[in-house]
Order: sequence, then C-alpha cells, then structure tokens
Amino acid sequence: MRITEARVIVCSPGRNFVTLKIVTDEGLYGVGDATLNGREMAVAAYLQEHVVPLLIGRGSDRIEHTWQYLFKGSYWGAGPVTMSAIAAVDMALWDLKGKRLGVPVHQLLGGRSRDKVLVYGHANGRDNAETIAAAERYRDLGYRAIRLQAGVPGLEHAYGVGRGDLFYEPAETGSPPEHVWSTETYLDHVPRLFAEAREALGWDVHLLHDAHHRLTPTEAGWLGHRLEDYRLFWLEDPVNDLLQDGFRHLRRHTRTPIAVGEVFNSVFQLHQLVTEQLVDYLRTTVLRTGGITPLMKIAHLAEPYQVRLGSHGATDLSPITMAAALQVDLAVHNFGIQEYMRHSDATAEVFSSSYAFDDGYLVPGAEPGLGADIDEAAAARFPYERAYLPVARSVDGTVTSW
Amino acid sequence: MRITEARVIVCSPGRNFVTLKIVTDEGLYGVGDATLNGREMAVAAYLQEHVVPLLIGRGSDRIEHTWQYLFKGSYWGAGPVTMSAIAAVDMALWDLKGKRLGVPVHQLLGGRSRDKVLVYGHANGRDNAETIAAAERYRDLGYRAIRLQAGVPGLEHAYGVGRGDLFYEPAETGSPPEHVWSTETYLDHVPRLFAEAREALGWDVHLLHDAHHRLTPTEAGWLGHRLEDYRLFWLEDPVNDLLQDGFRHLRRHTRTPIAVGEVFNSVFQLHQLVTEQLVDYLRTTVLRTGGITPLMKIAHLAEPYQVRLGSHGATDLSPITMAAALQVDLAVHNFGIQEYMRHSDATAEVFSSSYAFDDGYLVPGAEPGLGADIDEAAAARFPYERAYLPVARSVDGTVTSW
Amino acid sequence: MRITEARVIVCSPGRNFVTLKIVTDEGLYGVGDATLNGREMAVAAYLQEHVVPLLIGRGSDRIEHTWQYLFKGSYWGAGPVTMSAIAAVDMALWDLKGKRLGVPVHQLLGGRSRDKVLVYGHANGRDNAETIAAAERYRDLGYRAIRLQAGVPGLEHAYGVGRGDLFYEPAETGSPPEHVWSTETYLDHVPRLFAEAREALGWDVHLLHDAHHRLTPTEAGWLGHRLEDYRLFWLEDPVNDLLQDGFRHLRRHTRTPIAVGEVFNSVFQLHQLVTEQLVDYLRTTVLRTGGITPLMKIAHLAEPYQVRLGSHGATDLSPITMAAALQVDLAVHNFGIQEYMRHSDATAEVFSSSYAFDDGYLVPGAEPGLGADIDEAAAARFPYERAYLPVARSVDGTVTSW
Amino acid sequence: MRITEARVIVCSPGRNFVTLKIVTDEGLYGVGDATLNGREMAVAAYLQEHVVPLLIGRGSDRIEHTWQYLFKGSYWGAGPVTMSAIAAVDMALWDLKGKRLGVPVHQLLGGRSRDKVLVYGHANGRDNAETIAAAERYRDLGYRAIRLQAGVPGLEHAYGVGRGDLFYEPAETGSPPEHVWSTETYLDHVPRLFAEAREALGWDVHLLHDAHHRLTPTEAGWLGHRLEDYRLFWLEDPVNDLLQDGFRHLRRHTRTPIAVGEVFNSVFQLHQLVTEQLVDYLRTTVLRTGGITPLMKIAHLAEPYQVRLGSHGATDLSPITMAAALQVDLAVHNFGIQEYMRHSDATAEVFSSSYAFDDGYLVPGAEPGLGADIDEAAAARFPYERAYLPVARSVDGTVTSW
Repeated sequence: MRITEARVIVCSPGRNFVTLKIVTDEGLYGVGDATLNGREMAVAAYLQEHVVPLLIGRGSDRIEHTWQYLFKGSYWGAGPVTMSAIAAVDMALWDLKGKRLGVPVHQLLGGRSRDKVLVYGHANGRDNAETIAAAERYRDLGYRAIRLQAGVPGLEHAYGVGRGDLFYEPAETGSPPEHVWSTETYLDHVPRLFAEAREALGWDVHLLHDAHHRLTPTEAGWLGHRLEDYRLFWLEDPVNDLLQDGFRHLRRHTRTPIAVGEVFNSVFQLHQLVTEQLVDYLRTTVLRTGGITPLMKIAHLAEPYQVRLGSHGATDLSPITMAAALQVDLAVHNFGIQEYMRHSDATAEVFSSSYAFDDGYLVPGAEPGLGADIDEAAAARFPYERAYLPVARSVDGTVTSW
Repeated sequence: MRITEARVIVCSPGRNFVTLKIVTDEGLYGVGDATLNGREMAVAAYLQEHVVPLLIGRGSDRIEHTWQYLFKGSYWGAGPVTMSAIAAVDMALWDLKGKRLGVPVHQLLGGRSRDKVLVYGHANGRDNAETIAAAERYRDLGYRAIRLQAGVPGLEHAYGVGRGDLFYEPAETGSPPEHVWSTETYLDHVPRLFAEAREALGWDVHLLHDAHHRLTPTEAGWLGHRLEDYRLFWLEDPVNDLLQDGFRHLRRHTRTPIAVGEVFNSVFQLHQLVTEQLVDYLRTTVLRTGGITPLMKIAHLAEPYQVRLGSHGATDLSPITMAAALQVDLAVHNFGIQEYMRHSDATAEVFSSSYAFDDGYLVPGAEPGLGADIDEAAAARFPYERAYLPVARSVDGTVTSW
Repeated sequence: MRITEARVIVCSPGRNFVTLKIVTDEGLYGVGDATLNGREMAVAAYLQEHVVPLLIGRGSDRIEHTWQYLFKGSYWGAGPVTMSAIAAVDMALWDLKGKRLGVPVHQLLGGRSRDKVLVYGHANGRDNAETIAAAERYRDLGYRAIRLQAGVPGLEHAYGVGRGDLFYEPAETGSPPEHVWSTETYLDHVPRLFAEAREALGWDVHLLHDAHHRLTPTEAGWLGHRLEDYRLFWLEDPVNDLLQDGFRHLRRHTRTPIAVGEVFNSVFQLHQLVTEQLVDYLRTTVLRTGGITPLMKIAHLAEPYQVRLGSHGATDLSPITMAAALQVDLAVHNFGIQEYMRHSDATAEVFSSSYAFDDGYLVPGAEPGLGADIDEAAAARFPYERAYLPVARSVDGTVTSW
Repeated sequence: MRITEARVIVCSPGRNFVTLKIVTDEGLYGVGDATLNGREMAVAAYLQEHVVPLLIGRGSDRIEHTWQYLFKGSYWGAGPVTMSAIAAVDMALWDLKGKRLGVPVHQLLGGRSRDKVLVYGHANGRDNAETIAAAERYRDLGYRAIRLQAGVPGLEHAYGVGRGDLFYEPAETGSPPEHVWSTETYLDHVPRLFAEAREALGWDVHLLHDAHHRLTPTEAGWLGHRLEDYRLFWLEDPVNDLLQDGFRHLRRHTRTPIAVGEVFNSVFQLHQLVTEQLVDYLRTTVLRTGGITPLMKIAHLAEPYQVRLGSHGATDLSPITMAAALQVDLAVHNFGIQEYMRHSDATAEVFSSSYAFDDGYLVPGAEPGLGADIDEAAAARFPYERAYLPVARSVDGTVTSW
C-alpha cells in the first residue's frame, strides 16, 4: 500500500487544529493530529513543505522505519514543532495499518490490558466554593478523578481557572494575555482548597492539582508535603521540568505523587526521571512526543520502574490525538490515568470520534484504526485564526513560567 | 477467537525440543517454543499441568494481558522454567494474531526497520589453524560475521569446540560430561588466535568470541584489552553475568564491545547494564525472556542507551524461536546481529520454517504469523531422550561456570 | 555414604506439597521440601527427570559442591522452579549429615546463637474489630508478635484475610480466583487499623503488616510514614520487589522498618538492598533460595549491614522447610523473627516435626538432622490436586500484583 | 526605540537562508539569521505567523526580557524550529543595540578578551592523499587548524567529503540522497588518515575530525584511543549526543579531546556534559541555541569547568550568524576555536559582512552592531528551493544517524 497524497488541514472550530490526512493507492486513508497550541502554522509548514514530499510514493507499512527516517533525516533533533509533525505521520500510519487489517490500533499494540480507561476532569472556579461545587457536578456525572484549580485571593488570574461558561483551555486571539503571578500567595492558598475539598467531597474520589511549572524545587517540596494529608492522586508539573536531576531535591521532601511531561518531546527529557523514580506519572502525549511509536517505547522504559502513563488530554489536542491516546492507554500495562476535557460542539462538527464517557471511564469504539476522523468540508467552514497562550509575569514584572 | 486446545509436544529430532501448539475455535493455531536445554521436562510439566488449563476458553487477542496474567499469576517471579513456559504462550499468540490478520508478525511490531538480518556463524576447531580454516569456509558461504572458538593447548575441552562432524551445540545423553578448565591457559591463548585470524582472514569480516562466563572482571578486562587490536565485533559473556554492577570494573578496562544476556529471563537482570551502558549487545532471547512481548520492551529500554540486540540463536532453540527472533530483529530499530546455527536434518524433518540464509543475512519468509511450524506426526517419531549440558571444573576440582 | 535412591513425593494433605527423600547405602535418609505453591508439578518434574539421575551414586558429604554442581550445571540461572528443586536436595543432604553425625543441623552451622526462635502469627478478620479480636487470641496464646491484616470496606477481598474457619494461606482448586484491588481504598484504611489495634492491644506486642507488593514506592512511603506512630515491627513487601534501587525512594520517606524477600531465589536479587541498607529484614526462605547453604551465605552478607533474617513461614511450605528454617534461625547471629502458621491436621498426618511453640517462641527438638519427616504411606492417601494462587486486578481490569 | 516592522526573508543564493529584519521607529534595523538547514519554511512560518505580531510595537532594548517572553510564552519548550526563530530575534536586537550605541556587539558583552579568533577550515578528499593535499592548501592559506575528512575505501559516501569543486556543506534539491554507512570500515581507516597526515603535515598545525554522531560509545572510545598518538585538537560528535551520561563510558577510554553540540538548542542538553567535564568543547551555535543571550550563559556555565566554545560555523548558517558568533568568540574568556567555511559567491552577493580571514584567524570589522547585513533586492533574485540533508543507512538498510 503506497501513499499517493498527504493533505495538511488547518481549521479553527472553536480553536485551531492542524490535521494530516494520508491517502493511499488502495483508497484507504489515515489521519493524524499535528496541533501545536499557539504555534500551529509552523507545524503546518513543516509538514507541507518538508514532510509531505517525502511521503508521496512511500509504502505505509514500515512505521518504525518511517519514524526514524523523518527523525534522523531532520538531523537537528527533537523539538515541539518537529515532533508534532512526525507524530501526525505516525498516527496516520497506525490508523492506516489498523484499517487495512480491520482492527482497532490497540490490537496491534498487544491487545487490551484493561477494559476501560480511567479519566480525570477539570473542576475550577473563582474561589474554593465554586471549585468544589464544580467538582461535585463532575462527581455527579460519574467522574472518579477530578483536577481542582481555584482562583487565589489576591491574584487576578490563577492557572487553570476558566472564564464563566466558556470551555476552559486557553488560546486567545489577538495578543497573548499577561497574567500576574505570586507563588507565595498561591502556596498559602492551595492546602486550604484541598482541606475544604476533602471535607466536602470525602475520600472516594481522586483529587489532582496542577502547579504548572511555577514553583522552585524547595517550594514544590513544601507544597507537596502540605498536601500529603489530602492524599492527592498527583501534583502535576510542580517545577520547571527541563532539569531532570532538579527533581531529586523536591522528591526527597514529599510523598505526594508527582506527574510531569506534557511538554516533553523526547525520551531524553525523561529517562532520568524514570530510572531514578523521580516521578510517578508521565504526561507525555502521543502528539508531542512524535506519535504512538515513541510513546510505546517510553511506556516500556517506564514499566520496570513503576512509572505510569497519565497523558495530557486537554482540548488543545484534537479528538484524533485523544483517540490515539486511548489506543495506547488500553494497550500498555503501566497506564495510570488519562486527562479528559470534552471538546466544544464546533470541534465535534469537524472531528468525529467513537470513544464515549461512561461512569468515570472512557471506552473506545471498536472500529478499525484509531477511531476518529476529520470532515474536511466542515473544517473548511472554520478558517484558522491566530491565537496565543497567556504569558505569566511575577509581581515585579519578570516573565515567569505560565 | 477463543482457545479451545493447547498441546505440549516434546520431541528429540537430533536434540530435545518442547513445543506448545495453541488451537482456536476458528481453526487457526499458533506455535511457540518452550525448550530449556537440559531441563526440558520441567517446562513441559509447567505448561501441561499449570498453564494449559488457564488457556482453554481464553481469547487469543489480549497478548500483553495474558502475559501479565501468567507472570503475575505465578507470583514467584521470573526464572528459566517459568519464562520459557510463558514465552511459548506469547509466541503462539503472536503467531495466531499474525495469521488471523494475514501478515507476518513484524508487521504488527511496527514493520520492517531493515531489509535483512545480519547473522554470525560458529567456526571452531581443535587448534587455531583448524578454527581459521573453518572460518574461511564460513566466509566462502557468505558469512560476514564469524565466532571463533579454538581448542586450547593443555586443555582437553575448550568451550565451543565441537566433536568432529557433529553439529556443535552440546547436550549429552547419559550423565553430564565434566570438562576441566584453566583460565590462565586460555587467557594466554586467545589473543594468539585472533592475531592469526586477522592475518589470515583480513579485516572485512566481523570476528566474535565467547568467554562463556568463565573470567573474573579483572581477567575479562585484561583479555578485552589484549583483543582491542583485532577489533572484535564483541566479546561475549566475559564474566558471570548475574552481578550487574560487576561489569563496571571490567568496562573501565577495555574498549572491546561486550555482549551478554543469553541466560537472562527478566528486564531486572539487565536494566543497570543498559542504563549505565555497561554492555553493547543484549543476547536475551525471545524464548528465555518470556516471549516477543517482553523482548520488545527490553529493546525499547535499550534504544536510547545505544545498546543493541544480538540474540542467542544456538540450535538448542527450535526453528520456531529463530523465526520469532527474526520478526523482532526485523522490527526493532536497535538491532545488531543474530546468532545463527543451522539445525540438523532431523530437526528440519519436524520443524518447517521459511527463513533463508543469503549472503551473510537471514531473510524471513512472507507468510502470516511467525513463519515456522511443527509437524506433529514427524515429532512423534523422535521421542524425548534425557540429555545434559556439560559441567566445568577447575584444575583443582572446583565446580566452575561451564 | 553414597546416595542409592531419591524419591519425589507429591501429596495434598490439605494443600499440595512436593518432598524429596534421599536414601543412602548406609540406610540413612534425608528429606527436603520442594513445594512451589501453584506450580508444584514443574518442580516435581525438574527433580524427577533432571536431578534425581545426577544424585544416584553420588556421595552425600559434599553439600556445597553438590549445590554448585546442580546450580552451575543447570546453566540457565536461578528461578523459582530451579531453586526449589536444588533446595530440596540441599535440605536432604544437611538432614543426612546431621543424622550421620547424630546432631541437629544447627550444631553443624556453628551451634546455637540463641535459646529459642521468636515467631509471629497471623491475625486477620473481615474488619478491624474481628482482626483485633483475633490478635487478642494470639496474644493470649503467648504470641509476642502478630501480623494484622483486615478486610477493607469497599473491597471484597483484601490480601491476607481468610475465609471463616479455614486455614488462611490461599491455593484454590479449579481456576485462579480473581480479586479486585484498589490501593487508594486500602491506603486510607490501614492506619486506622493500627490506631485501633494499639488502642486495644497496647504496646507490649509486636505488630506487623504485609502490603504484598501492591504499592508504588511513593504510596509505600506515604503508608510507612502514616504507620510510624504505631511503631510496627515491620512493613512487609511494600512494593514490587524486583527493582532493588526502587527501594531508595521509599526508604527516604519512612522510618517504618521494611521486610522483603519471600519471592527471592538468589543473592543477586537482594545484594543491593543489603549493601545500601534499604531494608531491615530479609524474608528469603531456605526453600525458595536453594537451601540452607545459600541462606547461610545471605545471612553472612547481611550481618555487617545490620540486616536480619525474618523468613517466610506460611503453610505453603511443608514442616520440613519450617524445621530447616529453625536450624538456621538458631544458628545465625543476625536473626530477627520467623513467620509461623500452624499446619492443618491433615498436613500433620503426613509430616511429623519436633519443634514446639512455647510462649511466643518456637523451640526445636533435639534429634539429629532437621527434625522433620514425611510418612510416605500417609502421603499416598492425599493425592495431588491442582490449585492456584489468586490473581489480582485493578478496578479497570488490569492485572496487578496479587 | 520601538519595533515598527519585522520582515522574514527567505532566499537561496547557492543554498537556502531565512533572515529576520527588524525595523524600528528610529530608522535603525537589525538582522538575524533563522536558517534551519532542510526545514527552513517551518522557521519562516514560525516567525511570520507567530513571532512577528508579538514584536510590532515592542521596545527593542529589553533583550533578555524579550527572549524570556518568546521562550516561556511559547510554552512547549526548546527545539530546533523554536530556537532558530527566537535566535533571529535575539541577534537582530543585539545588532540594533550595537548600532544605536555605535559599537560592535562584543563591546556590550564585556569587550574583547582576545585580538582575533582562531578558526579551522575543512580539508577533504576522495582518499587520504587528496585530503592531505587539500590540507596543505589550507595550511598554505594560513590556516592553523584543519578538519580532515577523507573518503573511505569500500564506502561510496563518507561524511564530510564533498563533490569535486563544489562547496561542501550538503543540502540537496529533490529527495534526500541516501548514503550507505559502515562503521567498521570507517574505524579501520581513520587512524591511517591521521598517521599519514601527521607524516605529511608535521605537528605545527591543529588537526580535527568529525565522526558525526555515528559511533557507539565503545566504538568512539576505541577510535579516540587510536587517535591519541596524532594529538588531535578534537574529535567531534563521536556519538549520538542526546544521551549526556552516555559520554561517561566513552570519556574513560580516550584522552582525545571531545567536541559536541551543533544540534543542541538548550542548556539542558549540555549541562551534565559540562558539570561532569565529559567534553572539552561546546559547538553550540548562536543560531541553534536561541541567540547571543543564551550562548553567553552557556559560556558562563562552562567557564569554571574549563570547557570552551568551538562553535559550529558551516555554510548552512548565513554570514549573519558567523558575524554574531565572532562577537561572542571575541568576548568570552573560555573561547577555543571557531569553525569557518567560506560562503559561496552567490551567498556573498546577498549577505555582506566585515569580518576577514588573516593568517589563520578571523578578525571582525569595527562597525556598530553584528557586522553583517542582507541586501533584500539581491535576495529576491534567489528564490527558495526545497533542499534536504542526506539520510544515512546501514548496510542492512536500517536508517542510522547521518
């Protein structure tokens, strides 16, 4: 089966998505997600100008080989743009292989290791009460794990707190919004949020929290220690995650489980975190890390070290990535949890998918391939609009991690 | 597709083999090798009495899940008997999945990473001249890599040296033969073998050597250093391989590449060797490590550390293991070399396979599944005969590693 | 004294046992236990087919030598089947040597280091109250150390909790039972069990707990920390014990003593745990590790690091193993505690032993050898019945450690 | 001074270059290079669509601040596309600041640490004789340091060997060329090249060699050891450079100085190499690492560890990058050497620069700013043509590092 065409589709149904569609001489096609939130057109150009010409005429079977060809052939190493582009090819090739063989992709990854995929939802509010009320609604919907992010008194913007009824995940048209941040204010507040949450919600639901790279290792150790009494499922991105041995200090000071990795695009950014057991969950995604092929390898590296997958799953990834993630989540032994946000109605007009939420779990559909598709005609109705993630500043004006 | 029957077949066409044949309600069957040289009946009993009852009625699709079920369900951990039994199930399930989907197994492992599989053959002789003459015959057959093992003056038996025209790999009926061993005599001799071999054979052929676990780390460092001038492809099993950090000392003292792992049955016996880059090649096999499923994980662990597979492939593994190994060898990125000995004619009467040797490489056939099978009627003509590996003793009578 | 016969006896008086009986030309015989719970027939076949032929005609005196001959002669390394088989030979040879010299075996191991052997019993119940009541009965019987395992609200099966009046140690005929497991539910519950237990039982009794490999290192650190106020004698098997350096993280987070090792069959699975002082007690058994010979070596390795023996002693080991364990417990300097469960009446019909419980201690008898025997005629009345250990699954269906 | 306009100029005078020109309200402009060889249009799109809108209206003074704003604001971390784009902004802002203050940029970096910048040139040939003849011509031109790359008998393409009179640095229009590679053939050959080179060239010239990521650590240690007698200035990119602790093994086995880093785009890819002194020279460039701002920080990190800069300077970077590199080279204390290839005449039609080669050194001009510029009208005469770097394959067809 040879590739005859590959199309890069940029659309903005509610938010921007970049999609690769690979068509073969047997009439089958596969789809892959290439969305890089806030830098979409760089990936689209990478694919269109530099990758698509390498795909035409190529056989679709040799996925590992094609992955290495695109990665080593690019010479300059892994980064968010490069790996998002390669990921889209890899997803599309797995989609094609599943369709050609008539089975969902997890069948090609060793088959199901579990019946269903535990997910967590996002509860947030302007204050603790509003956040806890949101969590109660999630619990009533059947969620067994909920991330809590609350507004912090004294800060106009806290990470992860949305705006009214809008779907949460940020990306702003126009200029990037700038949010002022104060770690000290935040540190004082978070333990109270979880004290109140456990009081209100009890202990039969998993609670998660995201510090979004903003703490120093010492601050993160302090916060993790304070949160131990509330038995969090995880504390996410406690520190800037680029310095792997930087986690040693933090790790000595808290028994709260640590999750990290949504910005990783290479095994070389996490191997030390895994082999020294400095984290409990890897949030590396199918999309950012270069596809199903490398994510399976990362899962296999992590398995003997009791580190589990807990992939990023915000709505800045298209339903194609979510479908691909679920194939991996079902297959690997060392799965932990999957982040899950519902896509907007506009997104659902363009992207179809067969997975369904049921009682706290996602259950993938049974059709061959990944189980998601793009409607190109619908996509054409939602043209690209430039949008940016926010930028964070300290009180003194310093740019800090958002 | 459900498993309706599983048969354990023990036969001895030239040497003993234990084979598992799994039959399904759709009429398809898969085969797996469970041979543990010298301890065959323990694996046969493990399968027959303890594993087969767990397979009947089970679906054949969930390979990873079944692997974990058998491994964790056994509770007592990995060992040669346990993992050989589980490997046979795993191979048979991959064989079934390939057959059901109509593709060779490597298609399910990401597709071919290469066109063909580099192999090495075994040249041996009673002295250096005879060994080099044997190597020349291998080279004339097209081999690009040859293991050299020569008789050592002053030692009646050296490891790896066969008996006349017989196929080499040992297993003796009756009692285990006892071989007297002297490391000092051997150490003096080996560098001369390779000096003469490079003189005779030139530099366009890979030369390998197996020290078969018999050296101390200091002795191995000494030997590896002495062999550097002859640029070996690898020095195999230089020391007893059970102590992973024991390789640090050796490794500091030689630049000769190191291969190890034919007796490993778990990632926990090699993870430190990999992550500290203490070896260059892992000789872990599909059979001994518990199947294709765990060997793929080991390959993925090793890839970022530039450690490559170089699987054991002696004739004490049936053609089914060789076929399975070739599927892995084709698929993984970090493949190095495959050991290859031709099976005897008697073995070939019982086991069919589609791989073929061509100009120094093995090229697998294209049929669905693993590409090897057992003829049960032929197997019945070769009943099991108890046989043992040799035992080695030092000059003073101490039992030492064979 | 030469070995003239070796018989492998499989019987099921209440549960399955595999026993080796070695007979000599002087009319003396020795006995050894080869039981591998759930995989008995693999060991029986290993012994019958592969080991017994090597014993006939062999002198009985050279125990170390015979151990190395069987271990190195098997080539493929240590595992539960191999080491259980070798252990039975080793026990029988020590039994023979003791009988020939007319002394209990501990006399040959350097003589008694202590007068009596501290043991702990198993108290369990469907809830905390029932467990504490069981512990009170143990205390009234004189036990000075008691392991507490209680049912967990919300989980149908918790590890270590029996069924009504039956003796506890599991092994089920028919298919393996499948138990659903939730770590979170368990973590919340255990500290309450020990709070209530200390309240009821006071501080003059040692309390122990077994987490049975089910926690991640982070969870285990959290639990160990929570239990510190109750001063446990030990927390057993907090994590999967295959990754030795994985204990570093756990160890930094709790001061609760750690015990591990019932599934170990080789010094290479524990040397790092000892030399880095990552655990306090080794639960490695005479049976699983290959006999008295290697267990003495492990004790000797552990002594300078202040790590003590605390051997596994459930009823899935026959009274022969318990008798052998007591010989070691008496002899080595760095002994800590011995697990002790009473065997069923049926088991006692087949196996005789001379050790006796007295006021919290086991006191071995004074007869030569190990101090336990098998009645082959009685054994014949209890034929083997296949039985399995349970399999554990997470709530989502993933196979997890039992 | 505010930015009023920013133009992205893609041109192909001999080869492709991407240039950013930032124009201010004071009429001054600054230029920066954003070329990513083989993936140019991804960077151009990144700049045009995502970065340029953030620049308009922004003050030009706060270079560090703008760097953090663009880097942290992109959220997804460093990679070749992202950092090439940010580098172009950073270079242009330094150019602007120098022009505004009327001084060359090195004046703003602490002033000159040295008078001139030692460079090395590229000598290559189809065989050793041709390479040595080329080196002699370089020496006659005044070069004091020369990189030698020779064709390897038995390999059609060796890295670094050009084609006739063409300028060397590859980038092929049409499909990527595929080169077959054999490490063994190469390893045997390189020591002979340097033996002959020292014989012909004597010892008064520095000799360098680039292994271009193709060796395993063991092979690299072997080669480095073999080359010690010829006292190389450095051995470049001996192994794949993504695994920092992978350099430990290599480093123990050779005293040949090691250079690495042309593909690095973040301090997090090299900090361990520096703090463990695993390399001697960092080849990280102004362009790939995100500009002058981060490269100064890397130099500062390296200084206490006696690691020096030896920046990549092939013609796949425009003269703007070379000019910027020279500003850094002049300023930092721990400078080692600068790679230098003459750009083609076509390139010189488009890009002007004031640095000059003199007797083995580059001497920057004295004009304000970076000392290089682009002629947009000339650029327009050389439209972009897609081109690719080669892809390397092993003899068996595996994709390997080019």
